[in-house]
Amino acid sequence: MDTLAAYKAHLAEIAKLHSAQALLGWDQHTHMPKKGASARAQVAGKLSKMAFELFVSDEMGEYIDRLEKEDGLSLEERASVHRVGKDYRRHKAIPPALVEEMAIARSQAQSAWVQARERSDFSVFRPHLEKMVDYARRLTEYYGYEKEPYDALLEEFEPGMTSSRLREIIAPLQSELVPFLKRLIDEGEAPSTDPWEGRFDIATQRRLARRALEIIGYDFDAGGLDDVAHPFTTTIGPGDVRVTNRYLEDAPLSGLFAALHEGGHALYNQGMGENLYYLLLADGASHGIHESQSRMIENQIGRSRPFWRFFQPILAEYFPKFGKVDPEELYRSANIVKPSLIRVEADEVTYNLHIMLRFELETGLIDGSIPAGDLPALWNDAMERYLGITPLDDACGVLQDVHWSMGAFGYFPSYMLGNLYAAQIFAKLRSEIADLDERIASGDFEPLLAWLRENVHRLGGIYEPNELIERITGEGLDPSYFVTYVKEKYSDIYRL
Amino acid sequence: MDTLAAYKAHLAEIAKLHSAQALLGWDQHTHMPKKGASARAQVAGKLSKMAFELFVSDEMGEYIDRLEKEDGLSLEERASVHRVGKDYRRHKAIPPALVEEMAIARSQAQSAWVQARERSDFSVFRPHLEKMVDYARRLTEYYGYEKEPYDALLEEFEPGMTSSRLREIIAPLQSELVPFLKRLIDEGEAPSTDPWEGRFDIATQRRLARRALEIIGYDFDAGGLDDVAHPFTTTIGPGDVRVTNRYLEDAPLSGLFAALHEGGHALYNQGMGENLYYLLLADGASHGIHESQSRMIENQIGRSRPFWRFFQPILAEYFPKFGKVDPEELYRSANIVKPSLIRVEADEVTYNLHIMLRFELETGLIDGSIPAGDLPALWNDAMERYLGITPLDDACGVLQDVHWSMGAFGYFPSYMLGNLYAAQIFAKLRSEIADLDERIASGDFEPLLAWLRENVHRLGGIYEPNELIERITGEGLDPSYFVTYVKEKYSDIYRL
Repeated sequence: MDTLAAYKAHLAEIAKLHSAQALLGWDQHTHMPKKGASARAQVAGKLSKMAFELFVSDEMGEYIDRLEKEDGLSLEERASVHRVGKDYRRHKAIPPALVEEMAIARSQAQSAWVQARERSDFSVFRPHLEKMVDYARRLTEYYGYEKEPYDALLEEFEPGMTSSRLREIIAPLQSELVPFLKRLIDEGEAPSTDPWEGRFDIATQRRLARRALEIIGYDFDAGGLDDVAHPFTTTIGPGDVRVTNRYLEDAPLSGLFAALHEGGHALYNQGMGENLYYLLLADGASHGIHESQSRMIENQIGRSRPFWRFFQPILAEYFPKFGKVDPEELYRSANIVKPSLIRVEADEVTYNLHIMLRFELETGLIDGSIPAGDLPALWNDAMERYLGITPLDDACGVLQDVHWSMGAFGYFPSYMLGNLYAAQIFAKLRSEIADLDERIASGDFEPLLAWLRENVHRLGGIYEPNELIERITGEGLDPSYFVTYVKEKYSDIYRL
Repeated sequence: MDTLAAYKAHLAEIAKLHSAQALLGWDQHTHMPKKGASARAQVAGKLSKMAFELFVSDEMGEYIDRLEKEDGLSLEERASVHRVGKDYRRHKAIPPALVEEMAIARSQAQSAWVQARERSDFSVFRPHLEKMVDYARRLTEYYGYEKEPYDALLEEFEPGMTSSRLREIIAPLQSELVPFLKRLIDEGEAPSTDPWEGRFDIATQRRLARRALEIIGYDFDAGGLDDVAHPFTTTIGPGDVRVTNRYLEDAPLSGLFAALHEGGHALYNQGMGENLYYLLLADGASHGIHESQSRMIENQIGRSRPFWRFFQPILAEYFPKFGKVDPEELYRSANIVKPSLIRVEADEVTYNLHIMLRFELETGLIDGSIPAGDLPALWNDAMERYLGITPLDDACGVLQDVHWSMGAFGYFPSYMLGNLYAAQIFAKLRSEIADLDERIASGDFEPLLAWLRENVHRLGGIYEPNELIERITGEGLDPSYFVTYVKEKYSDIYRL
């Protein structure tokens, strides 16, 4: 067997373990009974260790060294060797025993987080969080970094991104958005919340979410929709990309937009060829790019005027009271700007402020200037500074996100980058599909999906984010697209 | 590390892989989308191969050789070494590559079976069945046998059982039951089917099944209930024993008794200590003993007069029309004897005839006297001979059971043995809990569960079936308990 074939066979073995790991993770959040948690942590740890050992094996090092010098590779193969090689070198320094230990701790931390959140009791989660922070800090030393330890973590989610570049992006965003937010609140004409008052049957919401996923082109023969506390999308394998969701009886838009959001992620993975999965290129270009696909379906599409022209009668099939509501009213009321406690419920204008808050706290946790025990107070303080509001309890505050329980420090900035990429990519998409609004308004999502498949989805992780955004839009990341998008849309809705 | 500790650590690694495998299997039948099937088969094959390689590894052989000579082992440890040692020697002869190949073929055969059954098209399943038979025949040669190749397969499900012993058991059963069945049909007063006429909402049936499981003491914090085509129970790990079920809109008893049946299996596994799981003793004494636990809950309890006295008002909470039905009428109508097409729907009198049919066909497949292609015709012919009826199509005939798609030849006799063990164990249980009927009639299932936990469940696979039945009842397997039970019960119901 030549090196390339051996490399691919080796990757396929890893991919199969990843598939089993993904299923264990999905099940842990959707179906696993609580008494199964401790044994599950052991199983997840074992598979994680096995996959890691294969990934950092000596053969892998040899394959990469040899293939990096070879000329005859296809585009996908070259990309695989490049990205796998980077990860290989990154992880090579980590002792396999530590990986297993972290996986066990992660599984336990996630169970503790679920409990802590249910009881709104940070103390249940705190020892686990301290452990996860400690692991993350140790990882930064193993990975290495040029300036700040946090950069070592960022690299995992957004290759090429740094803390200082993030501060450069955040500064103008903040200076544009904060005064705009103030103007909206002070001078704008806020849409009415009336259409969404009342209680909405959960089972009906679940069926509506399913319908919304079908509408955007999500393939249920290659996925599924299950209930969880914190929605996520996971690729169990080629042909199996699952969406999870949650529903609030008194806030039906929450479940609907979460479904569209996760559906956007899922379309990305459903649009990648099986070959990318087995070349370990099916995670997408970066978490930020992945997030751009979910945010675009959620916001640029789901929160658009043409969408609500199309969707109003469909909504009325599930909740008849909407039969009498003007689509324009639904559109406006689906775009209310209001500083709020929960990131995933945040509107497009304030969303990035939630990220700035987390970025500030995370960098403090990682550089050691913030002890985990101080988080609830610091969180509430930062909420006050960024958004002018204070959480009622920790469940709505510092315990709201699953990420830290997973040890995923450095992940949050991807959400902000996702918003920025989405605006920039969507501007390009609009320029190329002249009648996009009419298509959406008539329920024809095919040209949208075809464009995304061709320009983004099918490429999977072949390109890194800088390359990809350049390739798609002809220029590097430019936050001004997002600023323009938000200002135009909300000046109109708020009649400024 | 001494040998015992090393042996236990080795078994724990295998147990963790088994846990992941069990989850993959559960998911394949409950949630996996159809486009995920082919990748899933690869993943299942890989894990299966890894577990198998650990099981037949040289270390394992050394541990067993050494521990078989040691004196200081606990009861559980000795049992583990004994049973694992038997399995080790049995499987040692099988090439690991064949195990992986079979796991892939099994996964594909199961997907094909689901499709074939949906379309009632045997030709979709036939090539997969031929493959599975061929594998089974090869296995008998690897395993070895004294008289008949089928015995080599039986050993896996019912240690110590042989084809000739089965024929000895079947002969008197047939000679007692066939004339009794004829008397019931010809001279008996058949209960009315009236109470169960109509259509029964599936979602309500699902909630009722959940309630029934709660009633018998199934712990939902250590399990779950999901929909499938063919109900099964699976142990994902300690604290995670899941039940699956199906519901028919026009036959609510089907889903209810299937839930009680699977619940009986689940109680067995929920009643075993975690230590048995990691000693690979959590499969129970044998498949026949496992089946005795499900059949007892389904039949000796669920189809009893006191159960229906207690259950009638509960049933009426879900389906109000039963509020007006006499419990005695429900009891009688839940015990109608009628030759039918589907094994899992068969009554207690005819059930064993379904097994005799399968035993006849299976031994023919395995000794090569029956080609797989002849099965649909032979099945229909045997149904006519044993039960006097002919399937309308293959979905209701040869395609009804999942077992052959799993390559589980030699499994079916366990169902018959389960009936026989159940009757014998239940006779003992009744003699020791004098007021059992009153307890059940008042909804107190605690003494029943406590007795089963103490005498059966907590022992898991510590004893082999011959030993266990002797230990519980003071004598070896005696089919006359079943004959007596059936004759007394149905003579009463049919007013002979």
